[in-house]
Amino acid sequence: MGKPNRMLHLNLFLTSMGHHEAAWRHPKSDVSQALDFNYYKMLALKAEQAKLDSLFLADRYSVSKEAVKYGELLGGIEPLTLLSALAVVTKRIGLIATVSTTFNEPFNLSRRFASLDHLSGGRAGWNVITSGTDKEAQNFNFDRIPDHRERYSRAKEFVDVALKLWDSWEDDALIKDKASGIYADNNKIHEIHHAGHFFSVRGPLNISRSPQGMPVIVQAGSSNDGKEFAAQYAEVIFTAQQSLEDAQEFYSDIKSKVVEHGRSEEELKVLPGICPIIGESESEAKEKEAKLHELTNPEYSVLQLSNRIGFDLSTYPLDGPLPDLPDPGQINGHQSRAKLIMDLAEKENLTIRQLLLRLAGGRGHYTIAGTPKQIADELEAWFTSRAADGFNIMPQLMNEGFDDFVNLVVPELQRRGLFRTEYDGHTLRGHFGLNIPQNKSQIIG
Amino acid sequence: MGKPNRMLHLNLFLTSMGHHEAAWRHPKSDVSQALDFNYYKMLALKAEQAKLDSLFLADRYSVSKEAVKYGELLGGIEPLTLLSALAVVTKRIGLIATVSTTFNEPFNLSRRFASLDHLSGGRAGWNVITSGTDKEAQNFNFDRIPDHRERYSRAKEFVDVALKLWDSWEDDALIKDKASGIYADNNKIHEIHHAGHFFSVRGPLNISRSPQGMPVIVQAGSSNDGKEFAAQYAEVIFTAQQSLEDAQEFYSDIKSKVVEHGRSEEELKVLPGICPIIGESESEAKEKEAKLHELTNPEYSVLQLSNRIGFDLSTYPLDGPLPDLPDPGQINGHQSRAKLIMDLAEKENLTIRQLLLRLAGGRGHYTIAGTPKQIADELEAWFTSRAADGFNIMPQLMNEGFDDFVNLVVPELQRRGLFRTEYDGHTLRGHFGLNIPQNKSQIIG
Repeated sequence: MGKPNRMLHLNLFLTSMGHHEAAWRHPKSDVSQALDFNYYKMLALKAEQAKLDSLFLADRYSVSKEAVKYGELLGGIEPLTLLSALAVVTKRIGLIATVSTTFNEPFNLSRRFASLDHLSGGRAGWNVITSGTDKEAQNFNFDRIPDHRERYSRAKEFVDVALKLWDSWEDDALIKDKASGIYADNNKIHEIHHAGHFFSVRGPLNISRSPQGMPVIVQAGSSNDGKEFAAQYAEVIFTAQQSLEDAQEFYSDIKSKVVEHGRSEEELKVLPGICPIIGESESEAKEKEAKLHELTNPEYSVLQLSNRIGFDLSTYPLDGPLPDLPDPGQINGHQSRAKLIMDLAEKENLTIRQLLLRLAGGRGHYTIAGTPKQIADELEAWFTSRAADGFNIMPQLMNEGFDDFVNLVVPELQRRGLFRTEYDGHTLRGHFGLNIPQNKSQIIG
Repeated sequence: MGKPNRMLHLNLFLTSMGHHEAAWRHPKSDVSQALDFNYYKMLALKAEQAKLDSLFLADRYSVSKEAVKYGELLGGIEPLTLLSALAVVTKRIGLIATVSTTFNEPFNLSRRFASLDHLSGGRAGWNVITSGTDKEAQNFNFDRIPDHRERYSRAKEFVDVALKLWDSWEDDALIKDKASGIYADNNKIHEIHHAGHFFSVRGPLNISRSPQGMPVIVQAGSSNDGKEFAAQYAEVIFTAQQSLEDAQEFYSDIKSKVVEHGRSEEELKVLPGICPIIGESESEAKEKEAKLHELTNPEYSVLQLSNRIGFDLSTYPLDGPLPDLPDPGQINGHQSRAKLIMDLAEKENLTIRQLLLRLAGGRGHYTIAGTPKQIADELEAWFTSRAADGFNIMPQLMNEGFDDFVNLVVPELQRRGLFRTEYDGHTLRGHFGLNIPQNKSQIIG
């Protein structure tokens, strides 16, 4: 038998009403569902029915009063809480939670992910973020968010500790012998005695090794520090790219960095975000997009853009160009997204108003309004030309929009032999074609 | 209409195989279920069917390699993770998670409890602990556990911050007006600007006010610091008492402390732990108890007792008395439990071996082996003589033992008019007869 065809991977980036910033105002949206578990359950089951790899939840550790006014935070159930609940009403789909290394402790977090992995039978994934705003930091005893470099330094040590904790129970540590009264072989359970710059953790973890050994490690930042981190640790990277060429360049760059770290290319899957709007005809799709754009509020859009680039744009005329902005490499927040946005405005010579609409559908992720065939063509082109190993699907409108994707685009991808028609395995690692890492505790001692 | 009869409250203290330290070795136990969600779901549904007030989960932040060998940690799913999952497969029963203020951050934890409260439709409770061992501290950058007094000082400030965060969204902050595009009235969402000794937290919380306003606050320590904390903050207190007289004394003391804090007696429910073994006859119950005792391993029991009192007993003869021990008021760990154990040994003049068996069934909680009528009599006596407002039920053996309780004891209590036959409300506050606290954010500003 030959090597199986390379297949693409699809995650649903779960959000309350949709990724378009005005989605909640759309007639198809039912805002009362934003905190209703049954709504998320329905979406999860739809995604599982379509054989998607995983559900993905983003996260932030603050909310802006000004932006909440316009619908920035519709739901807000903490990601691991929601995924723990979704774990027991689904069977096969992966569950990826975003959690920050800057505002958590490795012992607690390793334990929560091991718990979710046990609960779900091996479907947990962790999107590692470092968080980038002062507002978040101010909820955790800081005045300012720690320096970009320091955050990544903490993130690396955090993940190192987590890896040791997940390895602290060997696979066969549990004996469970009622007759002798020996429940576990304690020679196979290891204290880790980590003593580093940020953390001192004795271990072992207080839960046994989970089905996947450890959650799938996901990363989403594309700054230099972020790429360096991803090349070393990540098994999946979520990216934002606006064009095939940019995506190819990123893909090739990150894969070569992975190889430099002594890993194989297949050990890191590159998944750009894509924000589809689907119509029977292209013009119908464009009309749907225009309808959503009409519901935007420039005051809100400017607020969001200002937060994203770390520069207050509220006093600049909407129909003028972006003013000169600080070098994104110098800002301390989310560097890669700020750079993407500035590049986009410059390349396409956009006014602020035009830029706002370009960002409304997916905050800088690639938006596409078209027929199922057009969208499938685009996904296939990115996939086959080494711009992507799959996609993080971000429906601009969840109700109807996600249905269109699973009912029309997924079957088209399946017909083309690009996407699974049935799950092979039961774990998220299985879906992504990733191995269960070998337990290294004997090496640690 | 007169005041409704005072009714007792019953929680199930959920554990993997049972509270007897040898429960996992019993023929009725299936150790493979210790990490199986369906097992916990089955127990939760049984408890809900019996109209119990709540499920309760304890917690620790470390595991002892030595004790794991003998079955100290059978499952280990993190409490809020497990309760988040149980929330969506149950409808009415409360969900109380133990979480430490020493090893967590108030912003994260307030958010997780608000999330659970939303997810469950108002059934969350938080058992506030400060944790008491060096081993736990060593998983969180400490060499030693912080001083008892300092832990409670942090706990108070932690809960103060949490209360402010839970109040940071007013009840009617959400507008959700699609037409105007106004989702929330941001004048009703408040930054808290907490700046204290342990924490600086700006707020607001990043989730709206939850159905109960805040989780039911539960407390379990009975040291002086613990009682002081409970009198001020707790709405439920779990206690361990070995006799009706001790329980009455504690009950009267804590209720008067509650009143000193300007609260009414009814605002704090006192629930001692009780560890039943039920038989058709008393002798059958005693035989069941003897059978469990036979399965204990003195080596393990001594290890557990040593950990509990903070003094190594492994070199002392089992058939001799307890040696002179340090004053429990001076130890830095769990003071109240250490004192209870030492008092018990002295009062009943027990050898170490005898003491081990007295503790095997419930680690110092009141154990009782008898007929359903005997157990109901005892619960009624404690309840009517102001020793308890209800009980934390800790079946020594979960399989069969908990069934006996819900099938035989609960109906007897219902016949006597002491326990509900149907849920009145849908929230944990409703079950406990506790009010939803008024939002104080306008006072905070």
